[in-house]
Amino acid sequence: MSKPTIDFYFDFSSPYGYLAAQRIDEIAEKHGREAVWRPHLIGAAFKTTGSRPLRDIPMKWEYAKVDAARAARLLGVPITMPPRFPFLSVAASRAYYWTFDHDPAAAKVLAKALYRAAFGEGRDISTVGSVVAIAGEIGQDSDALADAFETPAIKERLRDEVDAALDRGVYGSPFVFVGDEPFWGFDHLDLVDRWLETGGW
Amino acid sequence: MSKPTIDFYFDFSSPYGYLAAQRIDEIAEKHGREAVWRPHLIGAAFKTTGSRPLRDIPMKWEYAKVDAARAARLLGVPITMPPRFPFLSVAASRAYYWTFDHDPAAAKVLAKALYRAAFGEGRDISTVGSVVAIAGEIGQDSDALADAFETPAIKERLRDEVDAALDRGVYGSPFVFVGDEPFWGFDHLDLVDRWLETGGW
Repeated sequence: MSKPTIDFYFDFSSPYGYLAAQRIDEIAEKHGREAVWRPHLIGAAFKTTGSRPLRDIPMKWEYAKVDAARAARLLGVPITMPPRFPFLSVAASRAYYWTFDHDPAAAKVLAKALYRAAFGEGRDISTVGSVVAIAGEIGQDSDALADAFETPAIKERLRDEVDAALDRGVYGSPFVFVGDEPFWGFDHLDLVDRWLETGGW
Repeated sequence: MSKPTIDFYFDFSSPYGYLAAQRIDEIAEKHGREAVWRPHLIGAAFKTTGSRPLRDIPMKWEYAKVDAARAARLLGVPITMPPRFPFLSVAASRAYYWTFDHDPAAAKVLAKALYRAAFGEGRDISTVGSVVAIAGEIGQDSDALADAFETPAIKERLRDEVDAALDRGVYGSPFVFVGDEPFWGFDHLDLVDRWLETGGW
């Protein structure tokens, strides 16, 4: 059996993306794979689907708070909401792809640090300054990253990724593809595991 | 430990409600309980949340077709879409509560027959005539049901249930409560099972 790619789409401002980020690598590794992390901007998809941020829909938001906290307790990870929510995830996503193009493993380390800061510690990660600071805290070259933010290339890179995600039908966070098979939502990770185990059904 | 009630909210026009209906009783029985089936009208919640039917959002609809078919294959049940979708589920829901008030067990049998007709066989269940016919096919008193449809009480009964569901925060289908703990979505049934097993966490 060929080994399909595992693409993990998420928005840095998504609590369910944060939760999925705690599990996706373990699931991939269990099956001898590596997940490719692909931050996107859920707001771009909202323009297409007409959806709004969870927080703007009181009934859904009330439920999501209960549900996400319950999932976090089961995973044994902290979850908190950053002071501003939803927040802009453009800077975090740009930093991710710029880092990825130099060192994919370092990009994943950065992504985990950003998510931990936002939803583990409730810190603001919406500004270039905060993202650069977090890269520095984990020993990455924050000066080079800060310089990269001054170039148009870092913007174009993310725009292309966001467009590609939309073309692929990614309208939420998290969204996982195993080869061409799509799985939406944190709650689908067990199904992703099963799909990898069985090769599909 | 006291035994919390298990309330299973669903809309007769919801494919994910149909899928959940295949599992909920088995999960409840595993823990020595019985689930109370409570049809509601998702359209009423949509007015509050601003959501629209899946079919009106092409990206979500494309995914939902793949996802629901995949879940049905895993469950080993047929799934097909009725000729008109989404369809009005008012008649089916009214018939359910009228039957429930006379014989709760018979109401569940009727609900299963209606879901099987709609999503198992692709039949129209949107009219009073079709609902009454299906009640007759499974040996229920279709004449009495047809007469009941002429009374205002059958309308009020459903309206009260729909209002109560909204008050409880039910904005989707399926939606399960174990006591006061809410679980939204077909994909949460494993979590419902685990919650019942552990008493919560």
